Amino acid sequence: MNRKQLIKEIQKKRSFLCVGLDTDLSKIPGHLLREKDPVFEFNRQIIDATADYAVAYKPNIAFYEALGPKGWESLNKTLEYIPKDIFTIADAKRGDIGNTSSLYAKAFFESMDFDSITVAPYMGVDSVKPFLEFEGKWVILLALTSNEGSKDFQLFGAANGKPLFQEVLEKSSQWGSPENMMYVVGATRGEKIGEVRKIVPDHFFLVPGVGAQGGSLEEVAKYGMNRECGLLVNSSRGIIYAGSDHNFAQAARNEAGKLQQEMEALLDMYL
Amino acid sequence: MNRKQLIKEIQKKRSFLCVGLDTDLSKIPGHLLREKDPVFEFNRQIIDATADYAVAYKPNIAFYEALGPKGWESLNKTLEYIPKDIFTIADAKRGDIGNTSSLYAKAFFESMDFDSITVAPYMGVDSVKPFLEFEGKWVILLALTSNEGSKDFQLFGAANGKPLFQEVLEKSSQWGSPENMMYVVGATRGEKIGEVRKIVPDHFFLVPGVGAQGGSLEEVAKYGMNRECGLLVNSSRGIIYAGSDHNFAQAARNEAGKLQQEMEALLDMYL
Repeated sequence: MNRKQLIKEIQKKRSFLCVGLDTDLSKIPGHLLREKDPVFEFNRQIIDATADYAVAYKPNIAFYEALGPKGWESLNKTLEYIPKDIFTIADAKRGDIGNTSSLYAKAFFESMDFDSITVAPYMGVDSVKPFLEFEGKWVILLALTSNEGSKDFQLFGAANGKPLFQEVLEKSSQWGSPENMMYVVGATRGEKIGEVRKIVPDHFFLVPGVGAQGGSLEEVAKYGMNRECGLLVNSSRGIIYAGSDHNFAQAARNEAGKLQQEMEALLDMYL
Repeated sequence: MNRKQLIKEIQKKRSFLCVGLDTDLSKIPGHLLREKDPVFEFNRQIIDATADYAVAYKPNIAFYEALGPKGWESLNKTLEYIPKDIFTIADAKRGDIGNTSSLYAKAFFESMDFDSITVAPYMGVDSVKPFLEFEGKWVILLALTSNEGSKDFQLFGAANGKPLFQEVLEKSSQWGSPENMMYVVGATRGEKIGEVRKIVPDHFFLVPGVGAQGGSLEEVAKYGMNRECGLLVNSSRGIIYAGSDHNFAQAARNEAGKLQQEMEALLDMYL
């Protein structure tokens, strides 16, 4: 899916919601465990219930990888089930050199048909560029994450005037363009999102950390939105585990619907 | 495998050789493609041919992941085939937060039984610590890698007196100990290895970049060895693709043997 199509979907659905499919066998409703593929069955019902409100789905690859070959099958089936007008993100945080990155790219962009993959920047240009060689595919590069440990290295150098995350943004924005790169920018650092927006005015941000992690959607929109929205705000647990029994899909739909309404109001306010 | 056992193996085999299993269907001898599981068959013969000389095997996870569920089966079979007195490294370069890191750790340390996994530091402490909670398992953290792009961010801050890789070493060495952490330090930066050794005198280094990438084994030993050796030097393509037909295993054995002899001489010289 290209940038134009993504922006069109955001306008159509009046939403910039990404639903994180962090599907965990120990957390899904018990009755699903009798299904042949409980992970896929859970995802299928979540997708059916939330597709009206979501412009993106983001399976967290670790949850599937942890289940071995069976997990990869569940992931494949899930990916094929997602409607084609919804953006897909492999949250894999890969990052390795040259031929190895190419293999990861092939795995997620060819063997599977994800629109995008999250990538870690530590190894530099030759760990990122191989992903950018796939027409119509996206790199979502870690910039400023929402976790406690983001302070350890991402803010390194700030005392001398420029934190590492700024260097990452400045350099990497030369490797691709707003047509094939996005950035992970955590919601837990409200005004920091504004700093990032100044450095990369046109790129989309994938924003985790709203909800369970304490980030505020209003602040994210206030500091992060650009004139084409430029945001995909992710919620995982807050949506997919909103209910815990037979009503789980309806509960997920309610939560996704609430977020869509808030997002619609913010789009009305800022765009 | 614990540190004491690893050091004992190095002394016994007079070698600190790690063989990288970057097994690529397009590069293995054609006659193997008729086998039911060509990847495993190739690995099996490489392991049989090199186990006398190697103290570690390092499958590059991307090569297996790119093959889908079948690749994970080949990886599992390979891991089970590796003799128990040889250290195993999942070269996966994972790095994500809290519960996601725990899932990756479970995948590689429990579902599979790797001794260690390579991890990227960008997300900080809560992306690394979950891996350290597994008794007898190791994190091998990226510090200063051997690729061209390592300059992009790993040397960031050097102009102000401290490069990022130094901050990574100083902080992360507090999270674990030389008993459960190693560092990736590329061989292509000879004297830089000495700088790293000063910061973390006791940790093992996993050193890629010797051979195909141009690093010198003599320099690595000169600048990087400590009194317990403290090195695992990896060679992948130079060994496993030394031959290209029915003689491939013997050719791999010859190359591994040559490296072992060089390593034995260096151990004699420095230890």
